[in-house]
Amino acid sequence: MTGVTDDPRLVERLHRVALCQLTEPGDVRVANLISELGPGGLYRELVTPSVLATDSRTRSSRADAGARLADLDPQAILDAGARRGLRFVIPGDEEWPTPVDDLCFAPYLQERGGVPLGLWVRGALRLNELGTTVAVVGTRDSTAYGAELAAEIAASCGRAGVTVISGAANGIDSFAHRGAMAVDAPTVAVLACGADRAYPQENRALIDEMTRDGAVVSEVGPDLPAMRMRFLARNRIIAALSLGTVVVEAAVRSGALNTSNWAERLNRHVMGVPGPVSSEVSRGVHELLRRGGTVVTSGADVLELLGVSGSHLLDDPRTPQRRRDRLTARERQILDAVPVGQAAITTSIARTAGVDALTVSAALNRFVQRGLVERVPAGWQLTSAAVRG
Amino acid sequence: MTGVTDDPRLVERLHRVALCQLTEPGDVRVANLISELGPGGLYRELVTPSVLATDSRTRSSRADAGARLADLDPQAILDAGARRGLRFVIPGDEEWPTPVDDLCFAPYLQERGGVPLGLWVRGALRLNELGTTVAVVGTRDSTAYGAELAAEIAASCGRAGVTVISGAANGIDSFAHRGAMAVDAPTVAVLACGADRAYPQENRALIDEMTRDGAVVSEVGPDLPAMRMRFLARNRIIAALSLGTVVVEAAVRSGALNTSNWAERLNRHVMGVPGPVSSEVSRGVHELLRRGGTVVTSGADVLELLGVSGSHLLDDPRTPQRRRDRLTARERQILDAVPVGQAAITTSIARTAGVDALTVSAALNRFVQRGLVERVPAGWQLTSAAVRG
Repeated sequence: MTGVTDDPRLVERLHRVALCQLTEPGDVRVANLISELGPGGLYRELVTPSVLATDSRTRSSRADAGARLADLDPQAILDAGARRGLRFVIPGDEEWPTPVDDLCFAPYLQERGGVPLGLWVRGALRLNELGTTVAVVGTRDSTAYGAELAAEIAASCGRAGVTVISGAANGIDSFAHRGAMAVDAPTVAVLACGADRAYPQENRALIDEMTRDGAVVSEVGPDLPAMRMRFLARNRIIAALSLGTVVVEAAVRSGALNTSNWAERLNRHVMGVPGPVSSEVSRGVHELLRRGGTVVTSGADVLELLGVSGSHLLDDPRTPQRRRDRLTARERQILDAVPVGQAAITTSIARTAGVDALTVSAALNRFVQRGLVERVPAGWQLTSAAVRG
Repeated sequence: MTGVTDDPRLVERLHRVALCQLTEPGDVRVANLISELGPGGLYRELVTPSVLATDSRTRSSRADAGARLADLDPQAILDAGARRGLRFVIPGDEEWPTPVDDLCFAPYLQERGGVPLGLWVRGALRLNELGTTVAVVGTRDSTAYGAELAAEIAASCGRAGVTVISGAANGIDSFAHRGAMAVDAPTVAVLACGADRAYPQENRALIDEMTRDGAVVSEVGPDLPAMRMRFLARNRIIAALSLGTVVVEAAVRSGALNTSNWAERLNRHVMGVPGPVSSEVSRGVHELLRRGGTVVTSGADVLELLGVSGSHLLDDPRTPQRRRDRLTARERQILDAVPVGQAAITTSIARTAGVDALTVSAALNRFVQRGLVERVPAGWQLTSAAVRG
């Protein structure tokens, strides 16, 4: 690394750019070592071969990595990025999207994982100001059915102030981005290539348009191409930036399911839009729903699940005392005849209450519905809530 | 009640026929009193007004019920049923389907519930010989999509020896029965009218045909008509007779969802076939799936869930010992460097193992996947499984 600076934040930034450039995004070995040694520690560990390492094969490959690392000019990479409109956001920056830190403890998937070294960002929207977010993802081979739903869900979310995040792929992803933009809502694309590039190339205009109100994000440096492993790593960023992931249409073993897997690992909401069982691109969604995803059939469903709907649920105001208050005089007479701390049969309660057995039985059943009484093998008994009340 | 007998089983049968005739199916008051007093006790309680009951209004209505009860001739009802091919099966009979007893402790629904007083049965199939059972139910207003799936699921189940139970209604129910019959499998209809009748009338031929290999069942006596409350009570019998309930198409707040509610209360499998979100008759199913039902998209899915598929899952044979046995010598060297009872960071483990940090990090990640090691804030530690192994 050329150039010297005393600013520790800049030093860290340069270390992160260099490591970012040399390693593949989501390399779990790198993520682990960063979390233990910090970027500077890992940088030095790689540049200075450790005398304690006894394996000649990995030592030589590491020495090789160290040589390549030392050759990099991270400041030049930052400058080149800036010329292309990219900023490099790292943990600790004001713009750093802290939900991404949850990746630290999420189990790995297909040997990818961990908090990214940094995020290259292009666009007006700052990543610390995303507000409520939702990922809307799905297959490139979408049907008209999926396209319509992706756009409807994204537009509803956009109207409600929820930022839609997706991968800018053809099919569902594009319809999601366009759905949000159609209601003038910002939307964020996370790419598997450099944030200055466009993949797929035909979505160049869409991606550039997004940067006006939204943002384009990537874990890989400027001008780097998309690669298979980068898509898998990219999916975890989409999931981590979002409060929940909606899969609109997906084949089994697809990238969209990879994203929802990440959402699951991150304890985010996992949602799926069901479709005809005969549709190949609904099969993956049904699989996801079988594994515990939540059915959503509209933007309203998504907003409700995210807790964004206007009417928030209140705590149940029916305390035991108030439940009892709502009883009729006759009902109270019957409830008071149910002994505390033991069960009684209907006829015994009827005798105590001085009410006939059929009436008592009807009342006891109502009490069960209200949580005041429960049915046990020996008859009826007061619930703990009713006893406290 | 006319006629006298000393056979206690016959006396109980006659009491049950009488109570069955006088009360509505699934009346929770009756079910409760039966479970406490037995049919004879309730019969006597109703016929002989209790001096302890102080409410003159209910006492007089009870006296009225008692009078009507005493007027009944249950033996004549049994005989009339037999002439129409009906047998009356009660708890304790060899033919009694014991899964129905689970209704005893299931929470009530819409004031219906409880074990039926008895079941009127018509057909060759005995209710204690149903084997594995599944309910396939749904809307009368089925689409071609739902019809095809109901028939396919029923046929697959029938071929696998699973008895399909439904309600003989138009739409999904009929397609389910016909799907089973198409593969010569017995099928069972539970009716809301007398088991000698047919509701709807246009399904008379279907219902009669079912009795050849299967059975028609009802909780209400011979020749009684279907009524709203009887449908709700009937649904609980469908759910209770079945190991699981599949809802193929259903509007929100429909009878099919009532059946799946019962299945849920009875801790049976609840399954739903997803469909286009635009389809009105898939909306109820999506609701059910959102509440925790399992997505099924074919008969094979249903059979798998019921545990009927050919290949049963075996217990995971990977004990900790065998996991460790599968490690390479190098991996064992690294695993042995992870201390017992405390966490360590990668570089410390690398130093102990004498292996370089990148190699150690990669191995530790593989160990996490295999359940041998877990990531904690202070580094890595052995899982309890690995410690035991």
